[in-house]
Parts: sequence; C-alpha cells; structure tokens
Amino acid sequence: MLEFWYEFASTYSYPAAMRIEGLAEEAGVAVAWRPFLLGPLLYEHQGMKDSPFNVVPVKGEYMWRDMERVCAAEGLPLNHPSQFPRNTLLAARVAIVGLEDGWTPAFSRAVYQANFVADADISDPAVLEPLIAEVGAAPGAVLDAAAGEAAKARLKEHTEMARGRGLFGAPSFITPDGELFWGNDRLETALRWARDHASMETA
Amino acid sequence: MLEFWYEFASTYSYPAAMRIEGLAEEAGVAVAWRPFLLGPLLYEHQGMKDSPFNVVPVKGEYMWRDMERVCAAEGLPLNHPSQFPRNTLLAARVAIVGLEDGWTPAFSRAVYQANFVADADISDPAVLEPLIAEVGAAPGAVLDAAAGEAAKARLKEHTEMARGRGLFGAPSFITPDGELFWGNDRLETALRWARDHASMETA
Repeated sequence: MLEFWYEFASTYSYPAAMRIEGLAEEAGVAVAWRPFLLGPLLYEHQGMKDSPFNVVPVKGEYMWRDMERVCAAEGLPLNHPSQFPRNTLLAARVAIVGLEDGWTPAFSRAVYQANFVADADISDPAVLEPLIAEVGAAPGAVLDAAAGEAAKARLKEHTEMARGRGLFGAPSFITPDGELFWGNDRLETALRWARDHASMETA
Repeated sequence: MLEFWYEFASTYSYPAAMRIEGLAEEAGVAVAWRPFLLGPLLYEHQGMKDSPFNVVPVKGEYMWRDMERVCAAEGLPLNHPSQFPRNTLLAARVAIVGLEDGWTPAFSRAVYQANFVADADISDPAVLEPLIAEVGAAPGAVLDAAAGEAAKARLKEHTEMARGRGLFGAPSFITPDGELFWGNDRLETALRWARDHASMETA
C-alpha cells in the first residue's frame, strides 16, 4: 500500500494524480488517496499565506515551465489557471466524503482537470456538481455532507495526520514502513519502495 | 553541452557531481562545470541567511533522510556533516581557478567527499591543500590565485550569471537552448534534453 497525500491547489499533484493508478497497478501496490490542506502547514512551517510559487516568483517561473515539460512528456494537457492558487477547501471536503464509497480518485482527477486544464473555479459548488455527478454520486447530498461537521472534522484530521507525519509539500507519498517521499518525480521510487518493503507491513 | 551549476554547501549537488560525467558520456553531451554561490540568491529571493534546510526544519529532516536513500541507491557514502552548511567561498574560488586547466571537476568531487563523507571543514585552506595537490595543481599558487581579485571577480560573475538565468537552487542544469532544470533528480532529463536539442546550438 502507498499513501498518496495531495492538495488540489498543488500543481505537481495534478500529474501525480493522473499517473499514480496505472503505475501502482504495474507495481502491484494499492493506493490510499489522502486529500489534505497544505495551506495550514505552509503557514506553520514557513509563515507563508500564499503559494510558495507566488511568494518566491523565480521559483514560480521555473515551476510553470517545468510543469509544461512534465505534462508534455506524459501527454497531459495543461493550461495555466487564471487564478492561482484557488481555494480548495470545498473540493477537499467533497473528496473526503467520497472516500468510503470509492469515488474519490475519479473525482480528484476531475478536479485537477477542472483547475489545471479547463481553468474552472473549483471553489464554486456549481463547478463541482457535474464532477460529482460524473462519478455516480448525488451532488446535492454530497455537497450537504461536505458542509457537515463530520466532513470538516475528517479533513482536519487528515491535515493533522499530515503534520504529524512530517509532510511539508504535495504531492507526498508514505510507505507502510513510514518512508516519506515528496514530489511527483518521486512517485516511481515511492512505489518501488512500497513494493520492496511490503513484507514489513505483515511481518 | 550541459551547464552544471553547483554550490559546495548544497547536499543534492554532491550526488549530482558524482554522477554527471558518467551519465553525460553515455548521452554524448559535454559538461560545463559552473561553481557559484547560492547564498546571495537565497537571501535575495527568500530573505534567507541560512540553508533552507535549517530555516525550515521539517524540510531538513526530510532532506537528510532522502539524501541517505539517494546516496545508498547510487552506492555513494554519506555522513551527515557536523557543521551545516559550511562556508564555501574559498572552495568556490579555488574551483574557479581550476576551470582553465581542467581540474575543476575532479577537485569539486573531492570537495564534496571532504564535506559530506569525511566531515572535513572545507573552509580551511589546510583541508583544501591536499585536494588541490591530488588533482595535480600546486596548492600554494592556487590558493594565492584564489585569493586574488581575478578569481573573486570571476566567482561574482558566475553568481550574477546564475541570477540572470533564473537559478534559485542547486544543483541546476541549463541546456544550450536555455532550459533550466533544478535538482539532482532532473539530471537525466536535462541530459536527454541537451542531447535532443543539440542541433539548435549549431543551427
């Protein structure tokens, strides 16, 4: 098993989300999708109230060009969003709601495509509704659940877990024996580690 | 040709320095070694007066564990230096002096091994002397040259060039057509890009 920690505003989480299931199947490793909010950790660790790619413009320029190359190499479309980062609280709560019924991976990929391809405002319930419907869930009920105390509490728990596990960026991957890997470009390494150390899980 | 921009205090520049010549030979790409000082850019871009891995401890914890994994996978020894980061001004000036005579790559690898394997103080001329002698240069004359105005000016020029090219971290790689790649884990990608776009250099 490999834990996939992702944040909907995170650019590099987009190619990771699109790639992970195929690569995990090849490696024979199951994926646990773990939506969380990176903002509180960026503020706590680095005092940042905005994306590091906005706070440090030279890093942002590099990242957008690098994302173009990374996505082109993977055959993934990419359009620079007109707003960056977008508020991801609602989308993350919806993703939390979907975990038990198993539609979180498909919904999450759709949110990334909305944000980084269609340039849609993923903080808008009207944008999320068709994405929820497409994965076979009921938008009204799901949005109600996402606004409820249980979903809020579970998302907070996820973010607390991320903090406790030493996460500071997204995407991040955690193996059963506790190894943390940061970045889309570490996905293959993390999957190999998870496969090769799987025995520790059941030892 | 691929430009290899490195800073002696940069942890991930160590595996990059040890790997680059073999991989570049396989790819049929020449390597231009470009020592520079990252400190002034970290201060200018991010207001940091210390390594980001010290300023943000959670990133430092991750980096040291990740370096253990990266170096183990490459068969490279690694010992956490008792002082981090070390002052790299003198070593960088010496590396500048060696560029014309071609001993900068071997000297630079020796400096990384001194810093990250032998845990030696690479700011100490007495530590650098035997490393200079080992690459066939004369320590006394080289250290005199490194303290001279020409070496100081050339290192400043390198650091200015780095700033102008949009560098914000090390190691970084720049291809002949101006693509910037950041990080040891992008070395292979940068070499492929340099090889595949080499024709633009002579077009």
